[in-house]
Amino acid sequence: MNIVGVDLGGTYVKIGLVDSKNGKILKKSSIETKVELGGQEVVKRIANAILELTEGTDYHAVGIGSPGSIDKENGIVRFSPNFPDWHNFPLGSLLSELLGKNVYVENDANSFALGEKWFGAGIGKNHIVALTLGTGVGGGVISHGTLITGSTGIGAELGHVIINPNGPLCGCGNYGCLESYASATAIVRMATERKKKFPDSIIFKNEKVTAKAVFDAARDGDRLALMLRDEVVEALAIGITGFVHIFNPEVVIIGGGVSRAGDILFEPLRKRVNELVMPTFKDTFEIIQSPLVENAGILGAASIVLQREN
Amino acid sequence: MNIVGVDLGGTYVKIGLVDSKNGKILKKSSIETKVELGGQEVVKRIANAILELTEGTDYHAVGIGSPGSIDKENGIVRFSPNFPDWHNFPLGSLLSELLGKNVYVENDANSFALGEKWFGAGIGKNHIVALTLGTGVGGGVISHGTLITGSTGIGAELGHVIINPNGPLCGCGNYGCLESYASATAIVRMATERKKKFPDSIIFKNEKVTAKAVFDAARDGDRLALMLRDEVVEALAIGITGFVHIFNPEVVIIGGGVSRAGDILFEPLRKRVNELVMPTFKDTFEIIQSPLVENAGILGAASIVLQREN
Repeated sequence: MNIVGVDLGGTYVKIGLVDSKNGKILKKSSIETKVELGGQEVVKRIANAILELTEGTDYHAVGIGSPGSIDKENGIVRFSPNFPDWHNFPLGSLLSELLGKNVYVENDANSFALGEKWFGAGIGKNHIVALTLGTGVGGGVISHGTLITGSTGIGAELGHVIINPNGPLCGCGNYGCLESYASATAIVRMATERKKKFPDSIIFKNEKVTAKAVFDAARDGDRLALMLRDEVVEALAIGITGFVHIFNPEVVIIGGGVSRAGDILFEPLRKRVNELVMPTFKDTFEIIQSPLVENAGILGAASIVLQREN
Repeated sequence: MNIVGVDLGGTYVKIGLVDSKNGKILKKSSIETKVELGGQEVVKRIANAILELTEGTDYHAVGIGSPGSIDKENGIVRFSPNFPDWHNFPLGSLLSELLGKNVYVENDANSFALGEKWFGAGIGKNHIVALTLGTGVGGGVISHGTLITGSTGIGAELGHVIINPNGPLCGCGNYGCLESYASATAIVRMATERKKKFPDSIIFKNEKVTAKAVFDAARDGDRLALMLRDEVVEALAIGITGFVHIFNPEVVIIGGGVSRAGDILFEPLRKRVNELVMPTFKDTFEIIQSPLVENAGILGAASIVLQREN
């Protein structure tokens, strides 16, 4: 069975035709979102891109992973920081009308968790904590096989768990949320704040500071970079320890741009979480880098269909 | 239908015959646990107490809420700080053999959450976060109607979420767990540490410092007591804000000895959590003092049967 997965971002929409048996992406395309054209027009553009991509092929249904607060029952984007004009926008039904197919909508961090369950590091598992470390820190949790979305569908905000009340100001207005330490944005901020003290750090050899530059420099033994890496590890370890104590998961899967740092991040992180968890939790879980990489969005979106119809 | 609920504590075992229709406790009794006699003997004593309590009445099954790590499928107490000699102790099957009835075992903090769902402040709700503030801080979570126990049955350890990595040493070995701020033990410790600075505080008018004395003194305007109250509120607010962001619950129910402080604790707590949660979470939940009070243990234990057979 083929499914269309739509990874709806603020700048680009990535669309893929996915074979649900094995998660193979048969075809994919990408269009600009062009939010400024308005919701109706964005939906039309997505519909046209799907029609083009699937020309001559049949497909079963469409899953869309969207940032923001989603009314999943009705396929409505309640609101989204990425689409400031969308208030209770009926994304699902509008697209469904244009295509004549069932369309399922889910928050993008939740759909990342579903993608890992169906096609990634969570296959066969019913207890999954998933984190995406990107511009922000997104969370998705599957517990006892159920996606944890909560009573009004806005749960699993793992990035906004406070891990140090004396920590940096977070975009949400609180201090010391996980996001304020472990997002790419936070890492760049933490590096930039220390530029004066560490002017010779190779983090600053290019004008634009990036999280990737920080981890690359750490791999080269750069002092500031290693210090920043340790701070990110400590923050993530405190957060993940809490999630382990709460959900007792089989696996903690970390994706998003920052996760591509690889071993320089994951090795000390595994060690530190193992020190922090209570003895009974040791060896009950693994911490894994998302294997889906650049296909995580499309596969996650396609998984929404599988999870809902399961 | 009548159910026997057994609240197994380190010092006392409380047993009640519960009408499952309305949660009315028809009869109850209490015996000393006498852990020192060994597990087999403790089970015999419980069986005899149940036979005595239910003489002449029929009952359907038995639920036991026990401290420690429970293998709920098999009714086994893996281990428990309260019963140091019990390792993989088959509590359920031993009691079941003696009584000829089905016996269900669950962790006591989880059974507290179930008791609230079936008979307390969580009736009709599917998203409940429950905290017990006693000697330690216990947690129980019902999400999408399911008790969250995790992959090996040890989840929902809400008391051991780190809320301030620079906080006090917790019994678990970490620093700044919720339990290290909001348990009765922590409150007594925090008060005692400041006795030298506040020798005239009415907290110390009796030789034995208790959490109750702290909240009573706060109600009388005692300066140290109000300071301690504020610290407990801040810690609980940070923890609860995290649980709200994670579970998006309908209700956060707080029980255990400390909860009996009432408004002097709950009013500032509600205010502070409301300040800390992200705007989308405002008005999605209530924070409620457990209404079950001294019957919470028995009713929770009886609810295990209802939840499992439901």
